Amino acid sequence: MADPRFFSLAGPFSLKDLADISGARIGEGANSEAQFSDVLPLQNAGPEHLSFLDNKLYLKSISKSRAGACLMHVDHAASAPKTMALLLCEEPYRAYAKVAAAFHPRLVFEAHISASAIIDDTAIIGKGCLVSPGAVIGAKAEIGKNCCIGANTVIGKGVILGDDCDIGPNASLTYCIIGNRVNIHAGTRIGQEGYGYAPGKDGHIKIPQLGRVLIEDDVDIGANATLDRGSGPDTVIGAGTKIDNLVHIAHNARLGKNCLLASQVGVSGSTELGNFVMVGGKAGFAGHLKIGDGARIAAKSGVTADVQAGATVGGFPARPIKEWLRGIAVLRRIAKKKVE
Amino acid sequence: MADPRFFSLAGPFSLKDLADISGARIGEGANSEAQFSDVLPLQNAGPEHLSFLDNKLYLKSISKSRAGACLMHVDHAASAPKTMALLLCEEPYRAYAKVAAAFHPRLVFEAHISASAIIDDTAIIGKGCLVSPGAVIGAKAEIGKNCCIGANTVIGKGVILGDDCDIGPNASLTYCIIGNRVNIHAGTRIGQEGYGYAPGKDGHIKIPQLGRVLIEDDVDIGANATLDRGSGPDTVIGAGTKIDNLVHIAHNARLGKNCLLASQVGVSGSTELGNFVMVGGKAGFAGHLKIGDGARIAAKSGVTADVQAGATVGGFPARPIKEWLRGIAVLRRIAKKKVE
Amino acid sequence: MADPRFFSLAGPFSLKDLADISGARIGEGANSEAQFSDVLPLQNAGPEHLSFLDNKLYLKSISKSRAGACLMHVDHAASAPKTMALLLCEEPYRAYAKVAAAFHPRLVFEAHISASAIIDDTAIIGKGCLVSPGAVIGAKAEIGKNCCIGANTVIGKGVILGDDCDIGPNASLTYCIIGNRVNIHAGTRIGQEGYGYAPGKDGHIKIPQLGRVLIEDDVDIGANATLDRGSGPDTVIGAGTKIDNLVHIAHNARLGKNCLLASQVGVSGSTELGNFVMVGGKAGFAGHLKIGDGARIAAKSGVTADVQAGATVGGFPARPIKEWLRGIAVLRRIAKKKVE
Repeated sequence: MADPRFFSLAGPFSLKDLADISGARIGEGANSEAQFSDVLPLQNAGPEHLSFLDNKLYLKSISKSRAGACLMHVDHAASAPKTMALLLCEEPYRAYAKVAAAFHPRLVFEAHISASAIIDDTAIIGKGCLVSPGAVIGAKAEIGKNCCIGANTVIGKGVILGDDCDIGPNASLTYCIIGNRVNIHAGTRIGQEGYGYAPGKDGHIKIPQLGRVLIEDDVDIGANATLDRGSGPDTVIGAGTKIDNLVHIAHNARLGKNCLLASQVGVSGSTELGNFVMVGGKAGFAGHLKIGDGARIAAKSGVTADVQAGATVGGFPARPIKEWLRGIAVLRRIAKKKVE
Repeated sequence: MADPRFFSLAGPFSLKDLADISGARIGEGANSEAQFSDVLPLQNAGPEHLSFLDNKLYLKSISKSRAGACLMHVDHAASAPKTMALLLCEEPYRAYAKVAAAFHPRLVFEAHISASAIIDDTAIIGKGCLVSPGAVIGAKAEIGKNCCIGANTVIGKGVILGDDCDIGPNASLTYCIIGNRVNIHAGTRIGQEGYGYAPGKDGHIKIPQLGRVLIEDDVDIGANATLDRGSGPDTVIGAGTKIDNLVHIAHNARLGKNCLLASQVGVSGSTELGNFVMVGGKAGFAGHLKIGDGARIAAKSGVTADVQAGATVGGFPARPIKEWLRGIAVLRRIAKKKVE
Repeated sequence: MADPRFFSLAGPFSLKDLADISGARIGEGANSEAQFSDVLPLQNAGPEHLSFLDNKLYLKSISKSRAGACLMHVDHAASAPKTMALLLCEEPYRAYAKVAAAFHPRLVFEAHISASAIIDDTAIIGKGCLVSPGAVIGAKAEIGKNCCIGANTVIGKGVILGDDCDIGPNASLTYCIIGNRVNIHAGTRIGQEGYGYAPGKDGHIKIPQLGRVLIEDDVDIGANATLDRGSGPDTVIGAGTKIDNLVHIAHNARLGKNCLLASQVGVSGSTELGNFVMVGGKAGFAGHLKIGDGARIAAKSGVTADVQAGATVGGFPARPIKEWLRGIAVLRRIAKKKVE
């Protein structure tokens, strides 16, 4: 089970409860009244635990698993031990997310303003907030309801934060307006000056960076990421977009809704991503590009030109994924021949 | 206009004032007494705003722009609406930088030592400084005049900072000596131990890191960057060099004057960059290299050998840019043939 | 010598002392009673300093060096000036590490709990600790003996830290259990939620991240790195492993003992590295891979498949190093031909 040093636990839940929460169907012969105390991975779970099978890589481990119940697709049901109660569904991972959140609801915190937080007299803090020790909140900042502000986090003057936001420790939020249910992890930097210079032989002149960062509802941003404010236009992150650790978003970039950006991605200035764009780790985008809705960018790609909606690209310079893979295969074959 | 929640505004300025500030020439027929209230991008500007045209990508948008005035090169003047007042100059972006800074001068702050800052009795703070809440300043540190030290930033023992420096929130400056007009953004780490180990079969022995980081005048460093102190020699950043977010500079690296390093670049130990070296995003340098003055390194390059002054290189291992591009073109052609 | 603003200094030591500390043999004719005041690089050292020669790149500089003594391999002895006292050994860099640590022992600090640290009443702090200003230590956290906790660092509720750990400033440690002699540099983030979503057309559902980060003894982690907690299983860093700045370790990753990961490396979820794996800067690993003991991964590689123990790979997708280098050479040759 999840370490009680760190995690609180709801439940137990019956198999029927879990079916209701997840929208799954109880497999034949299972006892719908059986009680379950927590979720655990297949290899660690015991009879009182619910597990899930989604990634086919783990199909082999199910036969050895002692899990009392498991969420899975009906196509995999035959692989499961006969004693395992099955919860059958189309999307086991999404179903697991719902069940795990029921056992471990959003971090429960008591509303409290730490005596060691330094809050400007003109700042407004909504009801139900936790402001942790050492947090600094600047003049005329406005924090919504039920927000959790981490220890030693800095919220600059004028910043607006919606309701139900979780901000990790040691983060800094400046020159930004942030929606509801936004989750920003430890050490992430929002709103500092973008990297804008007019270069010259006598040195480079800084361009004043006069825009903001606008973050819409339900955005998550990982740890130690950096999102620069716009230079005049704003930098915008669309609703539901999820950004991983150490990602860099340059000034004036605009990300659409429900994008997924894996760790260490870099988006250069003024580049626009549509909705539901997926970006693999360490990929980079040149500036001033347009990436269409639903485009998929392979890990480590270097995108130097616009990408059409729905396209999948890879490599550097990024090409349609098949062309990139063919180039790799051809080069490999030629290299072998030359040696023979 | 720039959001008054975050930005203060000087002005208004007459067209003649703006011509004087920028060094531009007023285009034929324009009213030199017309007043302007702020700078804005072409697509957002109205009759009371000054805009600029530099990147040809935006040439199309000028005909639709409602901007009252625009800085541009004379070659583009014919594209502008006839009602737009023109400020003609050789380098519109540099001219814009000067004008924008006039409307939005360097962050005005009131000198103030926050009661919640923790400053060692032996530290020296110059006149006119703002030390923000939660900042920690160690023993015998010396801060020059008119510096702004961000909230929850840590300045270690013995650190020296020149005049007119802006240090963002949540940064840490240790084992370093820093010049005047240096700007270090949120969360950047200066002076921690370099990554130095004597590897061995029984484990790796740490090499004491006995150098410093020396940062010369007019250097800017982005957010969440890391600059390690030297192992014995110092790590040095030359005057006027501008470093973007999430860049890593390893121990003993030496950057010359007026270099430009885009985000997520990595410079390995003891590598030396000359003056005016330009480095694209995500490029990496092996250790112990010498990169000549004015060299240009394409984004995502992996530089594994010395680069001559003035050369432009790309790819991994980095090659002269033409050779790299030719390789890409050839591979693409071969890949197509093999399929046909 | 090391700048006394920042470094304290033990010694002086006699040549004989230094031979004892390093396990080196005194070269013929040297005065074993000669006294040395510090270590310095070859180019800066004077007659009272000890230096070392390890990297052949620096072989040329030894003839001009004024260093009084030098640690080196016997094969290089002939290059040294005749007045230089030699300390001969098999592994000069390891020998230097020991000697340098004798001159500059681990940061000496006075045990002290800063009045401005905010420590929960239920936290336990071991004897001999320095808790710096602005540090925040949460409920039921347990800190071992002789730890140094940096200024404005946040240690979350329930976290366990062993003895003799150094934690830099502005770091955050949450949901983690950490061994002895662990060194975590400024701004590093341990234990935040991993990047786990069940994607979907109506938006992406967060997967509760219910594991921890377990860090074994003698691990070093650089500045601004991010190590996410597990999703159910734990994220594990094996004893003696050294991780550089800006490295990302995703949820459920498991690193073996004595691995070396250079800066800006990314390890995706559930990937496992064996013992003594060496990873060059900016390399990335896809998820769910197994990398065998002693494998070596070239800088900037993209590893997309399992790597066998002892193998050396490079490129993207990573291939055996010889195959990768051959591909580069072949492509270069073809590109030249096509032009001729």
